[in-house]
Parts: sequence; C-alpha cells; structure tokens
Amino acid sequence: MSTIRVIEVKQSIFADNDKTAAAMRQELKERGIYLLNLMSSPGSGKTTTLKRTIAALKDEYKIGVMEADIDSDVDALAISETGAKAIQLHTMGMCHMDAAMTRQGFDQLIDNEIELAILENIGNLVCPAEFDTGAVKNAMILSVPEGHDKPLKYPLMFQVCDVVLINKMDVLPVFDFDLEKCTEYIHMRNPNAVVIPICAKTGEGMDAWYDWLRDQIKEWRS
Amino acid sequence: MSTIRVIEVKQSIFADNDKTAAAMRQELKERGIYLLNLMSSPGSGKTTTLKRTIAALKDEYKIGVMEADIDSDVDALAISETGAKAIQLHTMGMCHMDAAMTRQGFDQLIDNEIELAILENIGNLVCPAEFDTGAVKNAMILSVPEGHDKPLKYPLMFQVCDVVLINKMDVLPVFDFDLEKCTEYIHMRNPNAVVIPICAKTGEGMDAWYDWLRDQIKEWRS
Repeated sequence: MSTIRVIEVKQSIFADNDKTAAAMRQELKERGIYLLNLMSSPGSGKTTTLKRTIAALKDEYKIGVMEADIDSDVDALAISETGAKAIQLHTMGMCHMDAAMTRQGFDQLIDNEIELAILENIGNLVCPAEFDTGAVKNAMILSVPEGHDKPLKYPLMFQVCDVVLINKMDVLPVFDFDLEKCTEYIHMRNPNAVVIPICAKTGEGMDAWYDWLRDQIKEWRS
Repeated sequence: MSTIRVIEVKQSIFADNDKTAAAMRQELKERGIYLLNLMSSPGSGKTTTLKRTIAALKDEYKIGVMEADIDSDVDALAISETGAKAIQLHTMGMCHMDAAMTRQGFDQLIDNEIELAILENIGNLVCPAEFDTGAVKNAMILSVPEGHDKPLKYPLMFQVCDVVLINKMDVLPVFDFDLEKCTEYIHMRNPNAVVIPICAKTGEGMDAWYDWLRDQIKEWRS
C-alpha cells in the first residue's frame, strides 16, 4: 500500500519536473551553456574523470561543475583546486537531483559566464536516472571493477544515457570484465549510446571523450 | 516544492514501515530465523560473497537468499546453483526494499525451514539505508576500488550497518585505498560497526565473517 502511494506522488512530481527541466534546457540553449548530467555508482571515478577533463579543456571553455552531494563537500573541494568554478549543491539526504534542485546552481553558471557545465550527480545507478535534471545530455561512468553485467541490472540508467564511459581500464587484467559483452548489453538498453573505454587515472582513451564533448558543445551552440 | 511533498509522504511511509518491520522481526525471533540485510554499491561483490558464504556454511544451517532486483534474475540464478534456496523479489524499478516488500518472501523462508536468511538488497548506497527491512541486522560491503572516502559521502548507510565487509582486498596494490582511514571514517559514522577486510574471490579473511555470522545466529536463537 505504501508503495502505491509513493508512485502516485512520484508521477505528479515527474510531470512538474519535466516542465521545469524543459524550461531550463531552453534557457541554457539561449545562453549558449552546455550542461552535461554525469551519473555513476559511488567510486566509479566521476571526480577523477572530471579533474582530468577540466585540465584538458579549460583553455577551450569556461568550465563549471555543479557538485551534488548528500551533505559533504569532499568533491567540490577537489574540483575547486582545478581552477574550474565549483558549485556545491546539497541534496539533504535525497538520492538524486531533479530539475528544480539543479536550477539552484543556474545563476552561478550565468554569473561566471560558464560555457561547459557538468553536474556531478549523486552516486547511485537507480534514482538519478528517473529525473530529468534539465541537462542537455546524460553521461555515465561504469568502472571495470563493477562488472560488465550492470546494464542488465540497472536498465533505466543505461537507457537514458547518451554516452557511457568505461573507466579504470588499467585494471582490466585483474578483473573478469568483458568489454565486448558490456557494450552489447549497453546497446540492448540504448542502441544509440556511445561507449568510450577510458582510464581517468592514466589518461588512456580520454581524447575520444574530449572529442565527443567538443562535438556536443559545437552542435548545441550553433 | 515537489521535494517537500515527497518528504511528507516518506514520513508516513516510514512510520508504517517501522511497524511492519518490528512485527516481522518478532516473527523471525519466534521461528528462530536469522535474517541479515546485505547492502552495497552495484558491483561491490554481494553475489560472490554470498556464494562463498553459502558454500562454507551450508552444512551448518539451512540457508535462504532473498534476491531483490529491479527486474532481472541474474543473481537469483547464480545463487540457485549453490544449493541454497533462492527467492526472487522484484522491486519493479524501486530503489530499495521496505519491510512489506521483504515480507513477501517470508512464507518461502518458513516453508523451506530456513535458519539463516540473507536479503541481497538493491545495489545503492543511499535509499536502502532509509528503510528498515525487518532484518535482524544490517551488513554492507564496500569494495577497495570504490575508495576509502565513501563513509564521508554516504553517512546514513554506514550509520545503520552493524558490520562492514571491505571486499576485493586482493586488488589493494593497484588502488589508492587506505584501510586504516576507511575504518576511522566508518567508526565516525558508527563506533560499534565491526569492520572485516575480505576477498570473496580468493577467500581471504572470510573466516572472521563466518564467525561473526555464527555468533549472531547463536545469540538470536538462544
């Protein structure tokens, strides 16, 4: 019974949220800001990937990172050391970011004339996938130690993502991870998803990721 | 606004859920069934840990595993090969198990005269921690590749867990994981949490985990 009540409320929230998200996307378009929603499990390497991405692209774009955390600021501190604008958003225990929550960081993007904004969502493969944050596109990181069966177990997350980074490729030799199978499972969920194997720690494969981002930003701002 | 509505509904759900959970725990006690709620991130090794645990303890106890999955049965198939009773529970997209959902597997525990039951919860460090499943105790697995900072970022999960297994200790040399710091962070959240480093793949450290389980079951059934 309690389950049914949650779902009813969720549906009205989803409708409100979709409107807020669409309005925000329109405003991003008008201002030429590209916002990417980055999702993953805890510990898959979101922050490390962001730090390296900022180092590589900071001379091309003004970059801002919105750090969604339950109540800590561990990642925002790490990001602020890179020279990018770090915007801390606390979800106060919530498991995801919705469009209204994301919008709270919007003024700071404008004030800082951000061109590439990345939302580092809560580490969770279930809830964040349910909410349109207002971002232009969704990206996720799946790391090698998590296993190649994850698209089978967390269908919605892979369905809503436009690009999947397979991180920690450097430790492939010590894990039973089948990249081919993983790609096949991802494409079962979303045939259009772009899959890019990377190692955020060593930099391996990151150029393909930067190129994907450059193409995205160019298209969005044209 | 939408956020506030969720919280209001959640509070009434929590109150109902606490009652259902307490009633279930009482019934488990009367029937001498020890139920452990096992939580973790996706890919931290819950299923591998369970398979090895079942192999080690199946001559001592009748073991049943309740597999909570969003909509797949990958893990239930793996468990059923071990000889333990596998009970599949589908959450239909939900991010956690509550007591009413867990209770749906209860009759099968009784029919199969299960003595040690383990609920393999949804892979998620946020939502499952919020709901009392009716289990006797909460356990979680944190794996080395996820990083030692996780107790800082997912406070509630570590607060509600009685035992934390640190898994994938075999890959410690290739990751920047500080076991001492991790233990310190866990104890900041819950000073009474028992921390056991293991490798479910090789069996390293698993004896301490089996002993913890044996003591638990003995105490619960006395």
